[in-house]
Amino acid sequence: MLSFGKHFPLESTSASKQKMDDAFSALKEEMQSDRIGYYKLPTHSLTHLETLKTINTQSIKQIVIIGIGGSSLGIKAINSILRPYTPDVKEMLFLENSDPLTIKETMEKIRKEEACFFMISKSGSTIETTSVLKTLIAHFEIDLDGADKERLFVVTDAGSVLSDFAKHHQLHEFNIPDNVGGRFSVLSAVGVVPLAMAGYDMRALLGGAGSLIQSFFAGNENHLLEKAYWLASNSETQSINVLFSYADRLEDLTKWYVQLWGESLGKIDTNGKRVGLTPIGLIGAVDQHSFLQLIIEGPKDKSVTFITVEDFQVDLTIPDITLFGIEKTDFINSQSFNRLINAQCDATMQSVIESGVGADAIAMDKISAENIGAIMAYYELLTSLVGSMFKVNTYNQPGVELGKQILYKNLSN
Amino acid sequence: MLSFGKHFPLESTSASKQKMDDAFSALKEEMQSDRIGYYKLPTHSLTHLETLKTINTQSIKQIVIIGIGGSSLGIKAINSILRPYTPDVKEMLFLENSDPLTIKETMEKIRKEEACFFMISKSGSTIETTSVLKTLIAHFEIDLDGADKERLFVVTDAGSVLSDFAKHHQLHEFNIPDNVGGRFSVLSAVGVVPLAMAGYDMRALLGGAGSLIQSFFAGNENHLLEKAYWLASNSETQSINVLFSYADRLEDLTKWYVQLWGESLGKIDTNGKRVGLTPIGLIGAVDQHSFLQLIIEGPKDKSVTFITVEDFQVDLTIPDITLFGIEKTDFINSQSFNRLINAQCDATMQSVIESGVGADAIAMDKISAENIGAIMAYYELLTSLVGSMFKVNTYNQPGVELGKQILYKNLSN
Repeated sequence: MLSFGKHFPLESTSASKQKMDDAFSALKEEMQSDRIGYYKLPTHSLTHLETLKTINTQSIKQIVIIGIGGSSLGIKAINSILRPYTPDVKEMLFLENSDPLTIKETMEKIRKEEACFFMISKSGSTIETTSVLKTLIAHFEIDLDGADKERLFVVTDAGSVLSDFAKHHQLHEFNIPDNVGGRFSVLSAVGVVPLAMAGYDMRALLGGAGSLIQSFFAGNENHLLEKAYWLASNSETQSINVLFSYADRLEDLTKWYVQLWGESLGKIDTNGKRVGLTPIGLIGAVDQHSFLQLIIEGPKDKSVTFITVEDFQVDLTIPDITLFGIEKTDFINSQSFNRLINAQCDATMQSVIESGVGADAIAMDKISAENIGAIMAYYELLTSLVGSMFKVNTYNQPGVELGKQILYKNLSN
Repeated sequence: MLSFGKHFPLESTSASKQKMDDAFSALKEEMQSDRIGYYKLPTHSLTHLETLKTINTQSIKQIVIIGIGGSSLGIKAINSILRPYTPDVKEMLFLENSDPLTIKETMEKIRKEEACFFMISKSGSTIETTSVLKTLIAHFEIDLDGADKERLFVVTDAGSVLSDFAKHHQLHEFNIPDNVGGRFSVLSAVGVVPLAMAGYDMRALLGGAGSLIQSFFAGNENHLLEKAYWLASNSETQSINVLFSYADRLEDLTKWYVQLWGESLGKIDTNGKRVGLTPIGLIGAVDQHSFLQLIIEGPKDKSVTFITVEDFQVDLTIPDITLFGIEKTDFINSQSFNRLINAQCDATMQSVIESGVGADAIAMDKISAENIGAIMAYYELLTSLVGSMFKVNTYNQPGVELGKQILYKNLSN
C-alpha cells in the first residue's frame, strides 16, 4: 500500500481545474486510442509470463542483462529493491556501459554453462549493447546456431534489426510494443521476462501497477493531477525536483526516475521554447550530510518528494549502551533503526517545509512487488501528465541524435 | 597528469580580473593565516603515514569505516577508483546510513578477528555513526578495554566527545585539524589513515594534491580562477553544474563532489540572499541514455564538466564479427572499448556545445593516486574560489541544524 502526503500549496481556480481536466483527457485519449501503450502493459505483459512457463530455465543460475538506459534501469531498480525480500532469486549481472574495466570485471563473473543472456534494445542497434554482445560471443565462444541458442534471449521491437538477428538464428525473442518507449518499457517484456525468470513475482508487480493505473483513469487519484499541475505551473521557479528516498536500496529506483523525468520533459515545446524539469535522486539519511544544506539555504529552485518505507521488516535495535564521553547520544538507545531512519525523514521534511521549500511524501507500508509496481506506474503517469501540461512530446528524445551522428562520423573515419 | 580543456566563454574585463584577483588573495589569506587548513594537508598528513608504520596491522584483512558524509564519501571515492589498479589491497566495508537492511547485510560480511573498525566523526556525536558503533560493540561483543582495543581506531577533532571516548579506553586516535571542515577532510587522517592501511599509495595521492595546490598558489593555474569566475558570475542563469564522468568507477567521486559543491555553496550570503549552485553527477556513456536529452533541449540552466580517462589500462577490443541484421554497427569493429567510450565523450561534448550549453573538460592520462589527489584538490580549490566570489562562508553548514533539533525533540519524547 502506498500513501500520499500532500504539502504543495495548490490554489484551486477554474484555470487550474481546466488544465488538470485537459491533461487527464489527454492521457485517456493516449490510452484509449492505443497511441501510447504503457498504460495497458500490466495486463498485456501477462502473456509473457505464460510464454516463459514453456521455456525450460531449470539450469539457469545467472541472468546477464545486456542493455542500457531504458533497457536496464528499470530492471536494475526492481532487482536491487526486491532482492533482499525474495528468497532463492537468481543472480543478475548487468552489462550496460562501454567502460572496458566494468565489462572485463563483469565477464569474469559469468559462468557460461549456468548463464543466460538477454540482449535488450528497442531500436536493436544501440552501440554499447551490440558491441558488448559481439564481445561476449567471441569471449565465451557462443555458438549462435548450436547448443547455446537456448541461453540467448532477445527483447526488441518487432521488425528491428535485432529481431532480424534473433529470427535468423531462431533465438528466444520477446517484443516491445511499438507504442511503448524505452523509458516507459519496464513493465513490458524488457523487465517482466528477465525478472520473472530470476524469480521475482512479476504478476504481483504488474498487479500493483495495474491497480494504480486503473484507479487513476477511474478518477480516484486526483492527487496526481494536482501534483502534476503544481510541478508544471511552477516549473520556471521550482525547476529542480528532488526525489529523496529513505532506504539505500531505492537508489536504483531514483536513477530510473531520473531518466524518465529528465528525458521525457526536457524538450522544446510546441512554441519553440526550451522547457524541462531537472530530476535529482538522493538517499536519506546519507544525503542529509551532503545536499540538504543546499535545499534549505540555497536558491528556492527545488521541490522535494520524500519516499519512505514504514516497515523494513528487519529487526535491528540500537543497544542500550552508554559510552564514555558520548552519553548525549543515549536518547536514541533502545530504538530500532527502522524508527530512527523514518524519524530522520520526518525531521528533514519538517525542516525543508519550514524553510519554505515545497515538499510532499510517498510512504510504502513495506517493500513489496505490488508497491514497487505502483510507484513506477505513479511516476509514469506523473511524467505523462506534466508532459501534457508542458505541451511537449513526452515520448521521444530528439536531442540525443546529434551526438550519435558525431560519434558515427568520428569513428567511421 | 591532468589536462584541462576550456570551453566556457570568458570575457576578460577589469571587473572580472579584479574579482579573480580578490578570490585568489582571499584563498591565500585563508592558507597563510591557517584559518582554513585543507591547503596544507598534503604535507601535514604525512605524519600520519609515519605513525601508521608504528602500528602492527599485519593481521587486519578488513577495514570497516563507520562514518557518514565527509567522513565516508572521500574514502569511498578513492577506494572505488583505485581498487582495480592497486594490487593486494585490503577489503573495505562502509557503515554510513541508518538503513537497518544495509547495516544488517554489512555486519554479516564482517569477520571480527580479521577486522579493524574506524569510527570517524569530526564532531564526535553524529547520530548514525554512534548508533552503528553501539550496535557493533553489542553484536561483536567488542571488549573496549581488552584485546579488541587494538582493532579500534578513532578519527575525530581533538577535544571532541569521541576523543574523550578514545582516550578513556586508550584506543588508537587520529585527529582532524580544527581548521579543516568535514567535507574538506579527505586528505586529513579521515582518508589518509584507513586508505593507507588498506594498501593505497596515499603518499602519491597527497603528492598529486600538493602539487596542484602549490602550483595554484604560485599563480600557475589561472584556468581555475577563470572557471570559478564564470561559474559564479553565471550562477543565476546556469545554476546547475553537471559533472559527467566517463568511467563507471568515478561515480563515488561525483558523490564526493556533490557534497563538497552543494553544502559549501548553498548558503545565505552576506546580503541575506539565498545563493548556491546545484551539483549533479552523471556517468557516461550510461547517462547519455538518461539525462543528455534534458541538457541538450531543456532549459539552459546547466553547465557541464566532462571527466575522461585517456588510458583505462584494460585491453578489450570489439571483435571483428558481423552479425546478421545488425551489420550497420560494424563501423566500430576492431576498435577498443577504451576508444569507444572516449569517442562517446567527445561526441557528446561536441553536441552539448553545439546546443549552446557551456562545457569544459578534465582529462586524466590514467587512473592513478596522483591524478585522483590532484582532481580532489582541484575541486576543493574551485569550491573555495566560488565561495569567496559568492561572499558566503564556504566552510559551515548552518542549514542542517534545524532538522537535527527536530529529530532530537521527536525521539526524546
